[in-house]
Formats: sequence, structure tokens, C-alpha cells
Amino acid sequence: MNIVDIINKKRLRHHLAKEELEYAFMGYLNEKIESYQISALLMAICINGMTEEETINLTKIFIDSGDILDLSSIPGIKVDKHSTGGVGDKTTLVIAPIVASCGVYMAKMSGRGLGYTGGTIDKLESIKGFKTALSEEEFLKELRDIGLVISSQTTSLAPLDKKIYALRDVTGTVESYPLIASSIMSKKIASGADKIVIDLKLGKGALIHTKEDANKLKEILIKIGNSFKKETRVIITSMDNPLGNNVGNSLEVIEAMEVLKGNIDTPFAKLCIELASNLVSMGKNIPMMEAEQEVIKVLKNNQAYHKFLKLVEYQQGDINSLKISDQKIEIRSAKNGILKGIDAKLIGEISMKLGAGRLTKDDTIDHEVGIVLNKQVNDKIVENDLLCTLYVNKVKDEFNIREAFIIE
Amino acid sequence: MNIVDIINKKRLRHHLAKEELEYAFMGYLNEKIESYQISALLMAICINGMTEEETINLTKIFIDSGDILDLSSIPGIKVDKHSTGGVGDKTTLVIAPIVASCGVYMAKMSGRGLGYTGGTIDKLESIKGFKTALSEEEFLKELRDIGLVISSQTTSLAPLDKKIYALRDVTGTVESYPLIASSIMSKKIASGADKIVIDLKLGKGALIHTKEDANKLKEILIKIGNSFKKETRVIITSMDNPLGNNVGNSLEVIEAMEVLKGNIDTPFAKLCIELASNLVSMGKNIPMMEAEQEVIKVLKNNQAYHKFLKLVEYQQGDINSLKISDQKIEIRSAKNGILKGIDAKLIGEISMKLGAGRLTKDDTIDHEVGIVLNKQVNDKIVENDLLCTLYVNKVKDEFNIREAFIIE
Repeated sequence: MNIVDIINKKRLRHHLAKEELEYAFMGYLNEKIESYQISALLMAICINGMTEEETINLTKIFIDSGDILDLSSIPGIKVDKHSTGGVGDKTTLVIAPIVASCGVYMAKMSGRGLGYTGGTIDKLESIKGFKTALSEEEFLKELRDIGLVISSQTTSLAPLDKKIYALRDVTGTVESYPLIASSIMSKKIASGADKIVIDLKLGKGALIHTKEDANKLKEILIKIGNSFKKETRVIITSMDNPLGNNVGNSLEVIEAMEVLKGNIDTPFAKLCIELASNLVSMGKNIPMMEAEQEVIKVLKNNQAYHKFLKLVEYQQGDINSLKISDQKIEIRSAKNGILKGIDAKLIGEISMKLGAGRLTKDDTIDHEVGIVLNKQVNDKIVENDLLCTLYVNKVKDEFNIREAFIIE
Repeated sequence: MNIVDIINKKRLRHHLAKEELEYAFMGYLNEKIESYQISALLMAICINGMTEEETINLTKIFIDSGDILDLSSIPGIKVDKHSTGGVGDKTTLVIAPIVASCGVYMAKMSGRGLGYTGGTIDKLESIKGFKTALSEEEFLKELRDIGLVISSQTTSLAPLDKKIYALRDVTGTVESYPLIASSIMSKKIASGADKIVIDLKLGKGALIHTKEDANKLKEILIKIGNSFKKETRVIITSMDNPLGNNVGNSLEVIEAMEVLKGNIDTPFAKLCIELASNLVSMGKNIPMMEAEQEVIKVLKNNQAYHKFLKLVEYQQGDINSLKISDQKIEIRSAKNGILKGIDAKLIGEISMKLGAGRLTKDDTIDHEVGIVLNKQVNDKIVENDLLCTLYVNKVKDEFNIREAFIIE
């Protein structure tokens, strides 16, 4: 086998056998194949696509490049959830306690944020002392003891995916459905869950911009799940506007806690209920209607909220330490009209610039800063109305955030 | 500007402005852009193509990355010729002396061989003492004094093309018409000629396999030439079978000399006459018919032959030093039939393995070895007929060369 022949085959839209994919990708992991060769192959895959068989094989290669977490010592069905990423997406913080409160095990490995989207682990680290790096033993013990656990991803899961993702990020090869799908599914499958829900974000603030593309990706994700015998549901949800009102780490934990306390009349809370109901329905093999009733019950009776506090306590966090900066900048409208939309990407970028996110992996995060949206889409706006509040610390700039509010 | 945005644009089939191409490619030359980013861009170009404007701009960037040879001190029109490469292609050795004998200046920078195709410079180095590395001063003086010069390419011409070509070679991004065309034309234009003939090889032993593809490439080559105000003619010639009877360095010089001595009844000689006539026609602004008469005249009266001897002498070569190995392996037919074809690529590869070519840039060449084809395509073959003769030295293997002869 020869890497140039393999690249040429994909350039010419020929099918690559599992051995060829393995030779190329594992060769890259083992430093036998050069990065400039894999990036050429990735670009050929981006443009020419991959067959279902190739995509499943690549997923398998990603999975087999590292450890697979063995959850079999925990009884029953274990579920997991993944979001393709959005601005203000703190659903995991809400969903995991709900699902566990309903008696379904949820073992969640989460990531850190990069660019304009945040990461669950960064959000949890707003809570002083919260330990996110767990050993496999600690992870399993917590899952067994309280029914849920949230930990940063161990490096031993799908290391090849990690290396490929970093290369895709700097070579213009991110937007490929087979590559996105195999990346997502390899991590989920290596994490050991039996059933998986993918929250596929669609809209201006997401990677996927059209319904057609979302359906394509959904189809691939489900096919991969099926081929590994992991029941997979993909829920396509809107990411035109930021999710919820708060963007920034402490701010998002606080908003999540509001929902867990039973304030469930917001669009964000409704999304959490939908996703959690799917997970409970899969985990208990019950119809969606029934699952939804259980979910609403554990929210209304504060069981889910107490489960969250239990999680924080178990992972050594001090919930009373949550702190928001006391320096605010209030942004008011310069005109009258109807709020037609809020540019999620721009909000995410400004939040990052305020210090809530990272531009590069080495940046440190300021958990106390962020943005609270004071108006919702479709609200009537009168001049001088408060549009949003920036919680700032070192960086005291408003970054023309008014431009994110489309008022007509 | 941002390299990832530029790569993404090409992935999505958008047009790249000259500044964007310059940022990417010159950034690579200056080590500000990584090789894995340029290889991804090259693959996107391979698959999605480039517009005429992009191709011309890239050619200009290649040219401007180095020096441009100034031939303006030499009077009249200077012509140049390039072949896209083939097995047994020693046309330059024949054409340059013919053209100079007809009074048209021909300044030729040639390359070394890599893989299964040979290089003019390697062939000339079969002649003991022949100096191929000339300074610009020596190059111009010889051109002025005897009307022709053949030198190895100076590294200062189109260094970016050289670096990009090396990367394409190992990343499966060779087969792209805009990239092939801008590579060829940048070197020719930087070499300072006024008018250019491209010998575009088509067939099993060439990079281009279909007439349709050859015409596409021809069109781009001519457009680039026109945009730089260099009259360009592209002659599409067959490369299904090896060119001429001899493959290997000394052997090819000897075959070239045979033609120069006036033995012009072979298909190889006819090709040389066609190409030389085009160059003379362009150089003197005369019709092809008239040019062809002049070409045949200088072959018949040995003027071209003496011009070749003059070239060798001027560049300090000793023509009497030409030597072929005295160890032969004769290959005879195992069956009767008609010789339908000779696999040029296989012949080239075996010649390389015998030592006549390089697999890697660091290999050294044995000028005395090679292959003489004793039968022509369409010849009737009787069992035990001599098909070819291998002239061997260190490597004494026949490499199943019979398989190159398609006898039906």
C-alpha cells in the first residue's frame, strides 16, 4: 500500500477499503504518514464524500485507536447525549440531572469550548472546586452511586479523532458530513453508552445552515449508530438565535439551575425537556409521552435540581461559590421596532472576547464574565429599552454588540 | 487574510483573487503557511479546478517568485520547447541543433529525470566533461556565439514552482490541468523565450490519457502564453509506445545523433522534424512548409549534426567518450504474432531499475545502461525473434520485460 495511491483514489472518487483508510489514518497517528498527506486526503473526502461503508469503517478506526470505556458493570441501559455545538448551549447541565432523576444512567464526557461556542467542562468549572478530570474508577463509582457523572474527556478515547480534528480545524476541512459524523459517533461509542441522542444544531449560529444538510447528517449519524448496534436518535434544533438568555460560564450555570428549579416556560427549558424525554424514553423503553411526564415531574418536584446539587457535591464543587462580575455595561436600543433575530455567532464571539471563551487552546477563561440577553426574539422594542447586559472584567468593551440585534 | 478562509473558498468552488493566491503560495515559499495547509488547497484546486484568471495569476506568482532570465541582449526571436515527458524522449538533443542551424536562437534550460521518465541533462552527462551547470553569463555568451545552449535549470527560476511541484508529487495532487499548465508555463516564461512550443504527450506512457484531456490542457497552455504575450503552439503527440528505439542515457544520445546525421525515416525523426519546423516557423515568421524544407535541409547536409558537435565542444564534452555497457541480455519472443504495442511506462520503469534513472532524487545514474527495442509496433513476430536488448551493469535482471511487448 502507498499513501499517494490512496489519496489519488479518493481524488478520483473511488472507494477506499478499510485497510486503506487504516493505513492512511493510523499511519498519521503513528507518525508514519505526513500531515500534508492526510490533509490532502481529508480535502478529497470533504469534496468527494465517503460512502456509508467508508464512513462506518473510519468511525471504527477512530474508536479502535484508543480505549473503549466499559460501562457493563453498571446495570441497565446507559444513555449519552451530544450537541453539535451552539452559543449559550447549557443543555447538558439540565438534562443529565433530569435523566438520572428518572432512573436512567447518564455517563457524560464533555469538552471544553473553542472559538465562539462554549464547553460544558468550562461551565462546570465556574463552580469552585468542581473536579472535572476523573479517573476511570472515579467515573464509574460516581455513575453507580448517583446515576450520573460529567467528566472532561480522557485522552485515551479516540485519540486519532482528536489529532484529525485538530488538523481539520486549520486546513479548511471541517465541513464534511462523513467526517463530522464519524468524529461525533466515535467519541460517543468509545464512551460506552448503549443509546445516544444527538442534538443537531441548525441555523446561522451553527455549523449546519440548511434543513437539507441537517437531514443528510442525521441520516449518516443514525446509520453509524445502527451499524454499532447503538440506538441513535437525532433531534434537529434551531441555532439561529442564542440558546436561552445567558451566555458565559457562571451565567449559564445559573440559567440551567433556574430550569432545574422548575421554571420551564422558556424555549430553552422546552428544548431541555424534549432532549431529556428522548433519553428517558430510550433508557426505559417507554413512549415519548410517558417519558415527558416523568421529566416534567422531576423538574416540578425539584428532584432534578437536587440531583444537580448532588452531582456538584460529589465532584467536590461549592455551589455557593458561583460568582458573576459586578461590573456591568448595559446596552440599550437606538431605535424602535420588533426584534427579528439575535446573531448567535456574533454574541458568541463577543462573549469570547470578553474572556468567557478561548481563541486558542492556551487562553484562560474568566468564568465571571458574559452576556445576558434582556429581550427575546419577537419582542417589541422601544428606543432606550435594555437589549442586553455585558458582565465584564478585564476587557471593558461593548464590541458594537447592538449589531447582533436585528430590529425592524 | 486568513489561510483557512482561502482554503474554504476553494473547497466551496469560489473564485480566489490574485492577492489570496499570493498570500497562500508565497506564504508557503516564505514558510509562513504550513505544508498541510497548501496541500489541502492544492487538493481543492485539483478537484474543483481554477478559472482562467486564477491560472494566469498563479503562473505570474510562480514567475515572480524568482528571477527572470533576460535574453534581450541577443538579437531576434528566441524560441524554447518543452515536452510533458515520456519514455525515450530525446527530442531536445535533435531539435535544438536543427533550430540553431536554421538561424533561430534556442536557449534551453532542461531538467533531470525522476521516476520512469528521463531528463535531457542526464542524457547529456553521458558525454564525459559536458558541463551542464552554467552561470547566466556563460549561458548568454554561448547562445550569442553558437545560437544554442542547453543548461540545467538554475534554482533562481520559479523557486515556488519547484517547491510546490515537490509537494504535489507526494500528495496525490499532480493531475490538475491548471496546476500542470502554470508549472510548465512559469518555467518557460521565466527562461526568457519569446515563443514557445509545447510537446504535449498523450497516451499510456504519459500523464494525459485522453484526447479530450489533452485538448483541455492545450487550451489552458495557449491562454497562459497569450496572456504573457508569448506565442505558444501546443503539439499533441503520442506516447503509447516509447519514443524511438533507445531508452537510457548514452543510448539516447547515440539515437539522437543518428537523426542529426540525416537518418530521418523513423517515426521519432518525423516527430523531431515536426517540432523543429514549428520552432523555425515561429522564430522566422515563415509558413510551416517553408520551415520544414529548411529543417530537412540542415539535417540532410549535416549542418545540424555539426551544430550538435559544436554544442558538445563548447560545453567541454568529449563526444568520443560516449560508452554503452558491453554486458547485454537479449530478450526473445516466446510466441508468434503481431506486435500490437510496447508498454512505454513499463519500459521506462525497467530502464530506471537497470540504473538509467532515479527512483529518488539522491540516486546516481549509470549512463551506460538501458534498453534497445529491436522490434517496432506492427512488426510481425516469430518465436525466438529478438524483441529487445538490455544493456546492463550492476543490476543484471530482465524484470519480466517480455510483458511490455503486446503480441497478438
